[in-house]
Amino acid sequence: MQAKAGSLLSGLPSRPLTEELTETFCERPGLRIERIVSTGQASPDGQWYDQESDEWVLLVKGRARLRLEGETQDRELVEGDFVFLPAHCRHRVAWTQREPPTVWLAIHIFTKC
Amino acid sequence: MQAKAGSLLSGLPSRPLTEELTETFCERPGLRIERIVSTGQASPDGQWYDQESDEWVLLVKGRARLRLEGETQDRELVEGDFVFLPAHCRHRVAWTQREPPTVWLAIHIFTKC
Repeated sequence: MQAKAGSLLSGLPSRPLTEELTETFCERPGLRIERIVSTGQASPDGQWYDQESDEWVLLVKGRARLRLEGETQDRELVEGDFVFLPAHCRHRVAWTQREPPTVWLAIHIFTKC
Repeated sequence: MQAKAGSLLSGLPSRPLTEELTETFCERPGLRIERIVSTGQASPDGQWYDQESDEWVLLVKGRARLRLEGETQDRELVEGDFVFLPAHCRHRVAWTQREPPTVWLAIHIFTKC
C-alpha cells in the first residue's frame, strides 16, 4: 500500500474565510484524524460542544483560547499545546488567531478504555 | 472527567541524548498516541521497521529524513509534514536533526477499515 503523505501547513487560505476548513486524513472504525483551519472563528456566544466521542486536539500553528465548562477562565493555547477532551466535556472555542491561520490537529476517538 | 493538557514542546532535552524519548499521551484498544523526541538518532544501517499496526506520523519540530522500502531516495520531512505508514510498509529513519531536538507525533492504529 502506498504511504500517503502531505503537510498540515500546506493549502492554507491566504485570507480569512467565513467558515472553518476541515479535512479528514484518516478515518477508521473508532477513529478520525482531521485538520481544522480557523481564521478567527469562535463558538457563538453560549454555544458549547458536547461530543459523543473523546477528542485529543493539538494546536499546530497559530493561537487560540479554549473554555471548558466549569473553569473560570479561558485556556490559552500556543503551538505544540494539546488538550484531551473526554466525551461530554463541554467546551467552546473562545477565540482563534485570524491571520496567519490557526491550524489544529483533531483526533476523535470513539473507543473506550 | 478532567481534561488532560500539555505541550509537545515542553520537557525537551537541552542536549542530545543517547536514545530517543518516547511518551504515551493516550492509549486505547486499537490506538496509541505518543510523542517521540529524536536528537540525531537514526535506524541502524540495514534495519527496517516492519510494524503490525498502521502509523500516522507528524513531524512537529525539527527535521528528519525517512526512507521507505522500494523508494530510491529519502523523504525530507519538515515541520507540519505527515506520512501514513500502513502496517508492513517497511521504513527506516535515515536521519534526524540533533539540535534543537526533533519532535514527532506518532499515532499507532491497530484497527482496520
